[in-house]
Amino acid sequence: MSKAIPEPVTKLIDAFSRLPGVGPKTASRLTYYLLRAPDDVSLKLSDALRDLKAQTRFCSVCYNITVEDPCQICSDPRRDHHVIAVVEEPLDVLAIERTGSYDGVYHVLHGAISPVNGIGPDDLRIRELVKRVQEGGALEVIVATNPGLEGDATAMFIQRELAGKGVKVTRLARGLPVGGDLEYVDSVTLTRALQGRGEL
Amino acid sequence: MSKAIPEPVTKLIDAFSRLPGVGPKTASRLTYYLLRAPDDVSLKLSDALRDLKAQTRFCSVCYNITVEDPCQICSDPRRDHHVIAVVEEPLDVLAIERTGSYDGVYHVLHGAISPVNGIGPDDLRIRELVKRVQEGGALEVIVATNPGLEGDATAMFIQRELAGKGVKVTRLARGLPVGGDLEYVDSVTLTRALQGRGEL
Repeated sequence: MSKAIPEPVTKLIDAFSRLPGVGPKTASRLTYYLLRAPDDVSLKLSDALRDLKAQTRFCSVCYNITVEDPCQICSDPRRDHHVIAVVEEPLDVLAIERTGSYDGVYHVLHGAISPVNGIGPDDLRIRELVKRVQEGGALEVIVATNPGLEGDATAMFIQRELAGKGVKVTRLARGLPVGGDLEYVDSVTLTRALQGRGEL
Repeated sequence: MSKAIPEPVTKLIDAFSRLPGVGPKTASRLTYYLLRAPDDVSLKLSDALRDLKAQTRFCSVCYNITVEDPCQICSDPRRDHHVIAVVEEPLDVLAIERTGSYDGVYHVLHGAISPVNGIGPDDLRIRELVKRVQEGGALEVIVATNPGLEGDATAMFIQRELAGKGVKVTRLARGLPVGGDLEYVDSVTLTRALQGRGEL
């Protein structure tokens, strides 16, 4: 075994295996791919990994990933700082930014409450959100957690924590996805769409 | 867009995306996982990637991945240097070593002939194999390429190249996998098992 695989190779297989969704087979496949690929493929990845933590940090206001602190969104005077969209992940910020229809600011929780995975409110940036609201300025908190069990539990928790703090707490609308087909929509979504029906 | 994702993050997503089987979604997921994971997860991966090419090379005899040249198998006097097992990938060497029932040496082709993927005989270490056989010493070449279309084509090519060079060319036996269930074996394998049947 030790004769057949040199140590630099097993080390990389081990390091890849620590990534989520990467098993030992995928880790071997990636490693042997890189052995044959041009040097710059592995070196660029190596450099990018080294720079990731060295050059980024969490914004001290919204906890999004950023190079400068506070982040470009939090320090942008053209954004509406009275409205805070609370999301689970940095990628959710990107999704909302892509719509081009939101000009408020964000608060990134870095996860959702999930008893199964041992993630409680204290593991998320909820305390920081409450503090941010208490310090004033916010008029509305839009809870934009994912529309599922964990996102809902997180939304309920946040709503309770912010109750009586003089801020409006709203949640993204549930309903039919645009372009979706009624026939294929799951019944929970359809029920929500019926409950949330609006006048034409 | 540029506001929502800092450059070190997009750079890592790009670098991950260049790996085979890793799309932009998986690349984002891995990157954001690493952002939250302890520093040493990304740093260990970064170091392992940097060391992979710097500390390994191809064995000048068998073209397996190695730290020393020639590799530990090629320089081991207890191995039978008259028998060469020809495999497609370094991982195949490992598979054969694990059986503990082979004491010959290896020759790693680094692929198989695949016109679909534009891989011809010249892209593999076949010329080096022929040269190695011509230089003498080898009595048997066991073609241990994968039992599929490309492995078969490669085996046929090697057989033709080595014909008349005074070396016995053999191929791994086809048949029922041990522990397999006759009911679920595909008919090509079953046909091969029938054709290759032996006396009890």
